[in-house]
Parts: sequence; C-alpha cells; structure tokens
Amino acid sequence: MSEVLIVGSVAYDGLKTPYGSVPKILGGAATYSSLAASLFAPVKMVGVVGDDFKEAEFKMLRRHGINTELVTREKGKTFFWTGYYETDMSVAHTVSLELGVFETFNPLILGRSRKVPFVFLAAIHPDLQMNVLKQMDKPKFVVLDTRDLWINITKPSLLKVLKKTDLAVVNDQEIRLLTGEMHLMKGARALQKMGPKIVIVKKGEHGAMMFGPGWTFLSPAVPLDYVVDPTGAGDTFAGAFIGYLAKYKKVNEKLLKQAVIAGNLVASFTVQGFGTKTIEALNKAKLRKRAAAYHKFASIPKVKI
Amino acid sequence: MSEVLIVGSVAYDGLKTPYGSVPKILGGAATYSSLAASLFAPVKMVGVVGDDFKEAEFKMLRRHGINTELVTREKGKTFFWTGYYETDMSVAHTVSLELGVFETFNPLILGRSRKVPFVFLAAIHPDLQMNVLKQMDKPKFVVLDTRDLWINITKPSLLKVLKKTDLAVVNDQEIRLLTGEMHLMKGARALQKMGPKIVIVKKGEHGAMMFGPGWTFLSPAVPLDYVVDPTGAGDTFAGAFIGYLAKYKKVNEKLLKQAVIAGNLVASFTVQGFGTKTIEALNKAKLRKRAAAYHKFASIPKVKI
Repeated sequence: MSEVLIVGSVAYDGLKTPYGSVPKILGGAATYSSLAASLFAPVKMVGVVGDDFKEAEFKMLRRHGINTELVTREKGKTFFWTGYYETDMSVAHTVSLELGVFETFNPLILGRSRKVPFVFLAAIHPDLQMNVLKQMDKPKFVVLDTRDLWINITKPSLLKVLKKTDLAVVNDQEIRLLTGEMHLMKGARALQKMGPKIVIVKKGEHGAMMFGPGWTFLSPAVPLDYVVDPTGAGDTFAGAFIGYLAKYKKVNEKLLKQAVIAGNLVASFTVQGFGTKTIEALNKAKLRKRAAAYHKFASIPKVKI
Repeated sequence: MSEVLIVGSVAYDGLKTPYGSVPKILGGAATYSSLAASLFAPVKMVGVVGDDFKEAEFKMLRRHGINTELVTREKGKTFFWTGYYETDMSVAHTVSLELGVFETFNPLILGRSRKVPFVFLAAIHPDLQMNVLKQMDKPKFVVLDTRDLWINITKPSLLKVLKKTDLAVVNDQEIRLLTGEMHLMKGARALQKMGPKIVIVKKGEHGAMMFGPGWTFLSPAVPLDYVVDPTGAGDTFAGAFIGYLAKYKKVNEKLLKQAVIAGNLVASFTVQGFGTKTIEALNKAKLRKRAAAYHKFASIPKVKI
C-alpha cells in the first residue's frame, strides 16, 4: 500500500438543496477527496484553515487515517462557500464565496511527504498546483482536477501543469473550454495530447468515461433512489480513484478501470447525505454491498450475433 | 427462431442535420425497426404506403427477409415528415408533417400472421395498437413504444394498451408524462405497475436502462466518433431488441440484457448515415466487430474492496 498526498481546499459550506438546508458544514475538495481516499490508503492532506476551524474536524479526519500535519492553521476565516441547488441538482448556484485564509494559501510539502508517490491536485489555482509538484520528489502518479474558472483566467499556467500530470479529471464543459472541441471523444483525445496520458470525463448521473492510450472505458453511475446533496461528488470520485490505485501501488488498465468504479461507488454515498456525513459513516462492508449490487446492474453479458 | 410482427409508420423523410441534408429518403418507425429486427429473425411488417411509394423500397425490404404482404398500398401520399436537427442532435425539430394515407391506417392482420409470437407496436395511435393486439392470437411477448403526443392526447387509450404489453420503451420525458414522477427510477417502477413488467428507458447518448422485476440494468451507448443523422435510432433499438429475443425464442433476464445491447449496437450504425443507408448495409461481420469493441469499452472489472 502506498500513501496519497492530496492538496486542495478545506472549507465550510452553507447549503440548500431540494431536500433541506444546512447553515455551516465541513466541506472543501481536499476534505471530500481525503475522506474518500482514506477508505483505501493512508492520506497526507495539504491545506489551510482559519482560526474558526473546529478541532473536532481535525479529530474526525485523523480518525479516518488522514495525516493533517500539512494542514496549517492561519489567522483569519476558513474558506466559506454558500450555495444552492434547484431540482436539477447537476448545477451548483453560488450565493457567496469568502476565500479567507485560502487567499494566501502557500502549500508547503515537508520532509518525507515529498516522497509520497500518488498525488491528487484538487481544483486550485494552477500556479499552486505547480508549486506543489515542484516540491515533490518524482511522484509516481499525478492526478489533476480543475474548473472552468481556472481554464478561463489562468489557462497558460494550467497548460504548464497539465504537461506534468498523468491523469486529468474534467467534465464535458471543461473539456470543451480546454480543447475547443465540441465532441467529447475528440476533446478527450486532444487533451491527452496536452500532457495527461489518461483523461477521465465525469458525466454526473451518467457515470464517468475514461480515455487511456488506445482504449476507452465507461463506468455508469450507481443508480440511486434519492440524492440529497451533490456537493463533493466529483472530489469524492477523484479521492477514491487515487486511493484505490495507491492501495495496489500500481497503475495499469485494469486497476484504472477498477479505480473508476471505486470512485463512482464512493461518490454514490456522498450525494445521499449533506456534506461529508455519509462518507464519514462509510465502511468496507457497506461499500462491498453496493459494489455487489453495482456489478449486477452494470455487468454486460456477451451478445451472440 | 421465431418471427416478429412489427406495426408502425412507413414514411418518407426530408432531413437536415449539421452534416448535410436529404430532400426525400425512406423512413418511418416500422421501416427502421423491421430492418433492425431482420438482422436476427424473420419479420412481418404491417403498415400502409401511398401510390408514390417506390417499388424499389419494397424490394430492398424483402431482400432483408422482411415480409411486406401486410403493408398495404392505398390511393394517396405516403406519410411524409420533414425536420431538422441542430448541434444538439438529441432534439428533432419538425418542419412539416403530412399523414397522407397513414391518416386512415387500419392495420389488418391476416391468417398465420396472427400467430406471430413477438410483436412490436411502434409509436402509433394507441387505439391502433390495441386494434392490432386484439387481432393477435396470444402473442408471447409484446413490446410497445409511444411518444409524448399520444400520452398528451390519448392517455386513457394508451393506459389500456399498456395493460396488455410486456415491455414498454420510453424516454425520460415520456416516463414523466406517463407517471407524473420526476425521478426516473421511481417513474420506471410506477410504469411497471401500469402493465409492462419490463420498462426500458432510452437515454440517447447515455445508453438504455432496463427495469425488470427486482432488477435494473444499464447498457451504455456505443461511443461514436461522429453522428450524421439520429433519425430512427430509437426504432432501430426497439427492432433489434425484439429481433434478438425472437432469434432465441425466449425471454429471460440474461437474454433481455443481451437484447438491449444488441439494440444499442445496431442503433449505433443507424445514426452514422442518413436514413436507413447504414443499417441496410449492415451485416453480421460488422456487427460482431463493433460488439467486440463494445465489450472492451463497457465490461466492468470486479473491484476488490
């Protein structure tokens, strides 16, 4: 088993969905992805919080085997996002965004942490992503996430980081913005030429499509009777994905496919509760049960033609 | 091998898509679905055409093993639809619709044809669908398609036919209209209680989801580099689906799943050319090749948790 290093936002979220609302709840890309990765491998989390960040959150993270030594506490407020979802929960509407201490976030990777082989760069400013990569000592596998904002305002920086990543996780809108291709498959192949040998396109309720060198793979999303709060689904997916690879210390076509399924499975729990509640309560027994149901749902029999 | 009886429109279409346009080309639900079904089983086609219908079309259909004895020729014009697709080819825009001889279509099932065990009722007026069912002699398996128009204007009639069908093929909008459920899975289960034990929800580029008694199955769509004309994709899907079942003369969970995949595979050819051209040229070798690629794309490895 290898370790995973995860860099990203640690935040509080204020949320409203058709199923209810919460005024302030633990969130952030690094939080969701670290919790998800911790189901499979030990995690080193890199981030920054303000002096309003509760000690209980740290304790919860550590209880999940997440090393929080590289999460620094600064004077000021923790990143705070408020937003809501309407009936179509695939779109998050931002009401307010206070960067707080995140505005001057300067990730510092110290000592042994520089040797962690699996690295997930959650969607932060690409200069910060590059900053982290430069501190790492020849990582084995680097996964990058981004968002439309960074593509729109910092594309040259992002293109530089992409050159140094092994895998990029994007959605259909981001892939269009990045490559100018309207057609998803052409876009994915164009993105593969920009650095990452492997591209994963997250398609929300339609699952995730992965493009490798010479092969393509689709893992449908887990069918769900209800979704309570989609926040963190993508980060959970990416965290479980890289955690799964770290568990097996290898990267090959078969493990990559399994890791995508693991990502879909774990993300299916995240969206069934507010914030990180369901993923905090997740264990291997629950995950195995859902995995078994998923295999019945998505296994493709051979057609006889 | 059993026979399939297919009732639906036989038409000429005038089409414009981002890839080109054709002024007048063979189309219609019965045409697409019969051609698709004929890849797997002998087909009896039921429909009506006008005196403008070319003899060459009949010849082509017969060349594919389709029995056209129950396609009557009436005085008047063949059903003629003109429409176009924009960049988002999932929506067909109708420009004009001339029912012609289809307006007084009165399907007559004669003699041995009444004993055909597999029946596909394409999306026509539900009273006509019922009319056909009443003429059939205890069919083994009845598949019904419909469209928003019939749900909106003839719902009571449609509900009666649904009670007599084994399987309904719908899209997400139709399932909402039919059941009042916004959530696809709840809608499918509600529809199962209205008659058909099995429900297939067509999700276009995202594949097809099937709901059986106690099980759910998803077959992703075949990933395509290009789509030329989406007309007839749903009809092709349904035709290949029922043809596949008729080939094996049985209906069980495994065969139903294989039949959905067969539907997706054959439909992936239809959309890569205008009208019925690509499906006319389709053969088992081409289909097997695409099936092999599809299995690589959609086969789900077991995750080890």
